Amino acid sequence: MNPSFIELPGGITAVRGVRAAGVHCGIKKAKPDLALIRAADSSLVAGVFTTNRVKAAPVLWCQRRMQGGRLSAIVVNSGNANACTGIQGLKDAETMASLGAAAVGCPVEETFVCSTGVIGQCLPMDQIVRGIHEAAGRLREDGGPEAARAILTTDTVPKEAVVSMDVEGRLVHVGGMAKGAGMIGPQMATMLAILATDAVVEAPCLQEVLREAVEQSFHCITVDGDTSTNDTVLCFATGQAGGAGLHPRAPGWALFRDALFQVTQTLAKKIVADGEGATKVVTVRVAGAPSGEAARRIAFRVANSPLVKTAFFAQDCNWGRIMAAIGASGVELDPDRVEIHIGEVPVVSGGIGLGTDAERAAEESMAAREFDVAISLNQGEGGTVVWTTDLTYDYVRANVAYRS
Amino acid sequence: MNPSFIELPGGITAVRGVRAAGVHCGIKKAKPDLALIRAADSSLVAGVFTTNRVKAAPVLWCQRRMQGGRLSAIVVNSGNANACTGIQGLKDAETMASLGAAAVGCPVEETFVCSTGVIGQCLPMDQIVRGIHEAAGRLREDGGPEAARAILTTDTVPKEAVVSMDVEGRLVHVGGMAKGAGMIGPQMATMLAILATDAVVEAPCLQEVLREAVEQSFHCITVDGDTSTNDTVLCFATGQAGGAGLHPRAPGWALFRDALFQVTQTLAKKIVADGEGATKVVTVRVAGAPSGEAARRIAFRVANSPLVKTAFFAQDCNWGRIMAAIGASGVELDPDRVEIHIGEVPVVSGGIGLGTDAERAAEESMAAREFDVAISLNQGEGGTVVWTTDLTYDYVRANVAYRS
Repeated sequence: MNPSFIELPGGITAVRGVRAAGVHCGIKKAKPDLALIRAADSSLVAGVFTTNRVKAAPVLWCQRRMQGGRLSAIVVNSGNANACTGIQGLKDAETMASLGAAAVGCPVEETFVCSTGVIGQCLPMDQIVRGIHEAAGRLREDGGPEAARAILTTDTVPKEAVVSMDVEGRLVHVGGMAKGAGMIGPQMATMLAILATDAVVEAPCLQEVLREAVEQSFHCITVDGDTSTNDTVLCFATGQAGGAGLHPRAPGWALFRDALFQVTQTLAKKIVADGEGATKVVTVRVAGAPSGEAARRIAFRVANSPLVKTAFFAQDCNWGRIMAAIGASGVELDPDRVEIHIGEVPVVSGGIGLGTDAERAAEESMAAREFDVAISLNQGEGGTVVWTTDLTYDYVRANVAYRS
Repeated sequence: MNPSFIELPGGITAVRGVRAAGVHCGIKKAKPDLALIRAADSSLVAGVFTTNRVKAAPVLWCQRRMQGGRLSAIVVNSGNANACTGIQGLKDAETMASLGAAAVGCPVEETFVCSTGVIGQCLPMDQIVRGIHEAAGRLREDGGPEAARAILTTDTVPKEAVVSMDVEGRLVHVGGMAKGAGMIGPQMATMLAILATDAVVEAPCLQEVLREAVEQSFHCITVDGDTSTNDTVLCFATGQAGGAGLHPRAPGWALFRDALFQVTQTLAKKIVADGEGATKVVTVRVAGAPSGEAARRIAFRVANSPLVKTAFFAQDCNWGRIMAAIGASGVELDPDRVEIHIGEVPVVSGGIGLGTDAERAAEESMAAREFDVAISLNQGEGGTVVWTTDLTYDYVRANVAYRS
C-alpha cells in the first residue's frame, strides 16, 4: 500500500458528506436487507454496469440516471434482484427511487437504486416501503457498517475499505463497500460496490478513473465465471474536502487515483476471499504472453477451470491441469517455453514437470489459505493478474441450497 | 434411430476385419490399462484431434501418421496421458508404436497410439512392453468389450455402440468405443473414440464425414468445459463388406453417413451420462438464435454455467440463472423475447417467469435422470443441441481424489 495512505474503519460513512443506514424490512427472513445511502446533495457520480444482455430493472434505472451526472441518494435491497421482472420490475425500481427521494428530500432524478438476490420474482413493495421509511429515520454519520451488512446475499462477511490521505494540503477520503460471493466472473458478476470520496473531482474525470479502477480490480476476479444481471459499481464525490477540482494533470491526481485503485482492489480481494465455499484465495499471474489480451484469456481460463480449482482445494500440485487450461485458452503459444511457479517453487520448466520433489514442495505452499500461481510464457510482453478461489463441496452446497 | 439400422453387441470387433484385446499391464493398480486393436492390413483411416495448443506426444504421433492415410493397428494405454513429457514423451510414443507394430506384424507407419490419464509423468515403459506383448497374444474377434474396458480412466462404465445395415445389398457395420468422463468440453476434451467400419469408403470421403459426425456428437457435449491435451477420434474402414467404394454421390452414402452419426452420437451421450459425479443428463436446445454460432455460444454458456448445473442437481427450477447465462453469452439479443421450457413445461415467456405453479411443474420433469431445457430466442433461425450434466458433490470428490 502507498505509504501516504492511512487505513480507517467506518466504511463509506468515513467519507465526509455521507450518511447511511441498514435495516431489516422482511425481504429476507431475519437478516438486514435494505440499505440507504445519503450523499451530499447533487454529488458528482460515475458508474460501471453489467455487460450482461439481460439487465435487471435497477441497472436500467441507474443507467438512465447517469445522464444527469448527479447523485444524492442510493437505495439498495438484498434478497431479490428485481431482474427478469418485465414492466412491473421497471415500475418497482422507479417507485423505489421515488420513495427514497421523498424520504430523504432529494430529486428522484438523483436517486439511484440497486437490487441483488434471486432473479425472476417481483419485489415485495410493502416491505420496501416500510424499509425505506425506517432507514431514512436511522440515517447516521456512522451508519456505513450497518449499510454494508444490509446489502449482502450469500456473503458471510461485510466488505468495506477506507483510506485517507493528504492531497495538496487537504484531507481526502476514499471509501466504499461491496457485496458478492457467487456468480462472480470476469465482468464483475453479481457484484455491487458503492464508493465515495470527499475529494473535489472534475466531472468527466471521475468516470474515467472509475472505469480504470474497475478494470484493475473487480474485472480481475472470478469465483465461478458467471456474469450477473445486476452488477453495479457506483462512485460519487461529495466534494467536502474542498479545494480545486482534481483532474489528470493536477498535482494530487496520481495519489487520488492510487487511493481509488487501493480501495477497489481491497474490496475485490475481499469478495474472492468470501467466494462461495472457498477455502483458498489464489493469485494467478501470467507474464510473457504475446499480448495483454492473451495474458488475460490464459489467466481466466486457468482461474475458471473446474479441474484446476478442485486441485487447489485438494492442495494437489496437478500442474498438468494448468498446462491443459493454458493450451485450451485459444491463444497461439509454444508450450515448450512455459514455466510455472506455485508459491516460490518452480514446478514446470520448458513445458515439462520438474519432478515429485518440486511438487511436494509446491504443495506446502498450497496448504496456506493464500498462494500464487505464476505462469511465464516467455513469448512476449503481455501480463496480467487474476484472483480466484478453489472449487469445493461447499460451493456446490451453497448453490444447491440458495433458493430452498 | 433410422429403421434400417440393427443395433448389435460386441463393440468394435463386431466390424469385420477388426480384432482386439485389453489387458492389465500395471500402469494402474488393478484395472485393465492397455488395449490393442488390430485392423485389416492398411485400412483407410480418418482422424480428428484436440485443438489444445498443448498436445500430448501420442497426438503428435497420430497426426504425423495421418499423412500415410492407412492404419493397421492402434495401441491405447490408460492411466498416463504421456502429455507434457517433452522429448522423452515423443520417444516413448514412437517406441510404443514400434512395439505394437512388431507384435502384430505391420508397418510402424500404420501403427497409431493413444494415451489417457494423468498429465506430466513419463510412461512406465517396462509395463507398456509387457502389456503390448500380452495383448498381441490375446487378440480376438470378440475382444471389443475387453478393449473398451482397458481404455477407461475415471469412467464408471465402458462405452460401445455398433449398428449394421444393408447398403446396396451388402451387410455393413459401423461400430466403436469411447472413453471420457471428466475434462469434457466443447472440442471433445479428454476423450478418446475409436470407430471402425467394414464399408469400402473412398479415401477423402472418410475424413470429411468423420469431421461432420464429430461436429454433431463429441463437439456437442460438455461435462466441465475443459479441453484436454489428448483428445483423439480415429475412424478406420477395413473394406471387408466389399462392393464399390462409397462416396457422397453413391446411393448408399446417406445411410452410411447416418450410421456414423448414430454411433458417434450414442457414444457422446454415453460419455455425458457417465460424467464425473453426474446425476442428470440434460439436453440444452437453443432455437431462434441470430445464427448457428450464436445458438452454440448460448447453449454452451448455459451448459457450462456452474450455477445452472448446481440448480440441475438440486432439481431447482431456477430459470433466472439460465436467463443470466443467456445474457452473459456475448450474443446480441433481446431478452424480452426469450422463452424457456423445462421438460414440456413453459417457465419463461417474453423474458419473464410464468409463476411458481409452472416452476413446481417443471421441477417434476427435473426429477427424472434425463430432461430437456429448450430455449427459444425468437430472433432468428439459428439452432443447436448440446448435452450436459449437473454439477454435484461427487464431481468435486472425483477431481479431488484423482491423483491421490
